[in-house]
Amino acid sequence: MRPEEKLGRELPRYREELFDFLRIPSISAQPSHQDDVRRAAAWIREDLERTGFAAELVETEGHPVVLGEWRGAGPEAPTLLIYGHYDVQPPEPLPEWDSPPFEPSLRNGRIHARGATDDKGQVFLHLKALEAMLRDGGSLPVNVVTLFEGEEEVGSVHLLPVVERLRDRLACDAVVISDSNMYAPGIPSLLLSLRGLAYFELRVRGPARDLHSGTYGGAVVNPAGALARILSSLHDDRGQIAVPGLYDDVVEWDEETRDAIRTLPFDEAAYRRECGAEALGGEEGFSTLERSWIRPACDVNGIASGYTGEGAKTVLPATAMAKVSFRLVPDQDPERVGQLFRRHVANVAPPGVRVEVVELHGGHPWRARPEGAFFEAARSALRQGFGELPVLTGEGGSIPIVPAFEEVLGAQVVLLGFGLPGSNMHAPNEWFPEAHVEKGIRTLIHFYREAGKAPLRGPRGKDPAPRS
Amino acid sequence: MRPEEKLGRELPRYREELFDFLRIPSISAQPSHQDDVRRAAAWIREDLERTGFAAELVETEGHPVVLGEWRGAGPEAPTLLIYGHYDVQPPEPLPEWDSPPFEPSLRNGRIHARGATDDKGQVFLHLKALEAMLRDGGSLPVNVVTLFEGEEEVGSVHLLPVVERLRDRLACDAVVISDSNMYAPGIPSLLLSLRGLAYFELRVRGPARDLHSGTYGGAVVNPAGALARILSSLHDDRGQIAVPGLYDDVVEWDEETRDAIRTLPFDEAAYRRECGAEALGGEEGFSTLERSWIRPACDVNGIASGYTGEGAKTVLPATAMAKVSFRLVPDQDPERVGQLFRRHVANVAPPGVRVEVVELHGGHPWRARPEGAFFEAARSALRQGFGELPVLTGEGGSIPIVPAFEEVLGAQVVLLGFGLPGSNMHAPNEWFPEAHVEKGIRTLIHFYREAGKAPLRGPRGKDPAPRS
Repeated sequence: MRPEEKLGRELPRYREELFDFLRIPSISAQPSHQDDVRRAAAWIREDLERTGFAAELVETEGHPVVLGEWRGAGPEAPTLLIYGHYDVQPPEPLPEWDSPPFEPSLRNGRIHARGATDDKGQVFLHLKALEAMLRDGGSLPVNVVTLFEGEEEVGSVHLLPVVERLRDRLACDAVVISDSNMYAPGIPSLLLSLRGLAYFELRVRGPARDLHSGTYGGAVVNPAGALARILSSLHDDRGQIAVPGLYDDVVEWDEETRDAIRTLPFDEAAYRRECGAEALGGEEGFSTLERSWIRPACDVNGIASGYTGEGAKTVLPATAMAKVSFRLVPDQDPERVGQLFRRHVANVAPPGVRVEVVELHGGHPWRARPEGAFFEAARSALRQGFGELPVLTGEGGSIPIVPAFEEVLGAQVVLLGFGLPGSNMHAPNEWFPEAHVEKGIRTLIHFYREAGKAPLRGPRGKDPAPRS
Repeated sequence: MRPEEKLGRELPRYREELFDFLRIPSISAQPSHQDDVRRAAAWIREDLERTGFAAELVETEGHPVVLGEWRGAGPEAPTLLIYGHYDVQPPEPLPEWDSPPFEPSLRNGRIHARGATDDKGQVFLHLKALEAMLRDGGSLPVNVVTLFEGEEEVGSVHLLPVVERLRDRLACDAVVISDSNMYAPGIPSLLLSLRGLAYFELRVRGPARDLHSGTYGGAVVNPAGALARILSSLHDDRGQIAVPGLYDDVVEWDEETRDAIRTLPFDEAAYRRECGAEALGGEEGFSTLERSWIRPACDVNGIASGYTGEGAKTVLPATAMAKVSFRLVPDQDPERVGQLFRRHVANVAPPGVRVEVVELHGGHPWRARPEGAFFEAARSALRQGFGELPVLTGEGGSIPIVPAFEEVLGAQVVLLGFGLPGSNMHAPNEWFPEAHVEKGIRTLIHFYREAGKAPLRGPRGKDPAPRS
């Protein structure tokens, strides 16, 4: 029986299994759910074993990584690494859910559950595509290694050491990741870029203790006011980031790519409605999609200082703090951005306060090579599954492990997402389009099949070229 | 027996009574201490009655006002209104106190207790000066009305209606208030000015909910960034407040007064040490004392937005808020400042966010008329009590009831304080100099006596001139 026929026959069972998987509250951030996270890992391992994989839990200091291997295509065939994560965001605030987050509910063509899109639902598509092809004596033209982690929602802190330690077993020709959205309903997409991240905490200290703002106001430098001055110095009047040198490493995109972005159907009114903003803003000379995909951004993620309760407290606060993050594009480097940011802050901070910059998180930007057999396989597979060739899109967010995969494994990464915009990843009422279960599995079956036609890249597990 | 002799003899008993008074935890802000606040009011009423006053508790919707009247000087003598407050600030944080806040402790010449300076200790000086003069058949050359409230630390919300309702009984020739500090140890002072207050909350709203700063950063206007821009627009590079029109009503002080301030002994290094600031700042062209006494100031009292916990959360916050207050000098008006502030905020707020300005608190600035019989009486009394003529000082903080007394009662206000700088009003380890108990009572006895020589001002309780 062809895998597509098997898919048609087994779909009702697949949906039941998906609901079982989504019922496990694998919330990596909450220690009380530690056993549930491990249960989700075991669920995957057993599923892989039933399909015919050798599977194991690789222990870390945190939650385990599920490593699966099927090498039935033989040493002459290409190898694909499938990465995903089985942990989910905390569901809070619970009262805002229309149905309980861990009791999957199908309504209006949407499967509502925490993790339905991010990322258990999409991991599940891979598991069932593999099952449809391999179980009952089937075969695959590619070797497949799976790497499903349980800490993506808490920063993937233990993943990179595992990848480095197991680099020989993870050696592959391409990495495929389904952890993102399609461009729009009916418009499949392939990701061309991810932005990087450089995230800081700014700490401003003024007087030794909170002072009375009447007695001292006007004579003692106010740390909250100083912080506001520093933060407002981060942009100029044209919406550009005003940190000197910040754009030095920004690669201008070619006109072809910019044209491709410009011709994407984009409904700004719908976008505004979706995020609830009355008007949009940003860097002059760039469209909304360009601003969020291919241009750097700088955001204040939080500020705290002084008295913020009810009523009027006349305090001149001793300290003020802000979280500030930069989204980076090729070839910006988070460390270099950190140096520029520190220098700028030191230049603009007024005398009378001490300012400290603490680096909290960093990740490199990434740009796909939109070519080659695996990329073409993904294009062709999406047309097979959704009836349309995919558009090329960017993603404003960061997946730090993507450039790390390229660097450590020297393999091309293909980002092939099946969610839809507005799917409420990280928010109440997360959902996944029910029709995408079948279409997604169909797409992946085709993708694996096409990937088997890719030429071998040469010796695997080699050291990659040094990063520029 | 002369009152001064009585004072010498009764001082040990006075100190015991002061400690009794300070033991009552009359914390007006904490509902659990409601009975204690009333107990402090009753303590004063009984003390006044023993001295020979007619005294009563005037009920309000909050804590009562203690009204005392002694009109033994007769209708041809002047009348003095003594205002003070018997409520205290909350003592928290308790672990920072070296001795419990409501167990008065005498160490190194300092009486440590919550309320020792602000204001129970200073109210007590008046009570005992009156007692020394009146009890056992003594007399006074002035009629005295006392008005002690229990809500000064929570904004005196019910005081003004009481003053307006009882304006005939409160009619007087002068108001005397002891609720401030002397300029320095050994340097008594009389207050020449108080700054006014205009306190606002700024609320900035952007997207309808918190967004992912990766996905939307650079395209959606960030409310925290917008707030920082608004706040940083409040000052120019020379330290002046950059709200257009704000200085229109600022009365430049005469050179004589500025010279008097300039010649006050001022140790900037000691001031910096006292508040723990590495460097001072403020409006160019003015000294530290001028900046905090006779020039307007604008301070950020608090800011809150987004994520401020541990680590990195990539959120583009939906809202941001700040508390912003202006200290006003004659002839600035809090309402007019509010109009200017609103207009300025509307002008500088970037498109894409909505900004709301909420007025939380306002009070007029005040400047003394440093002349006339009552003012001279205070000068002479301070020399009597402390051996030095007082210097004239300003106060950066606000006492909104002071200009209100002038307006409603049409009477001169004399601010005669006995605390010392660094007395930790509103902070842990509040203290009052033990030697100032005797010196303060001695000063007040002399003041009442001299006040009796003041010429009558004419019909009392008249409508004041309309405010300019």
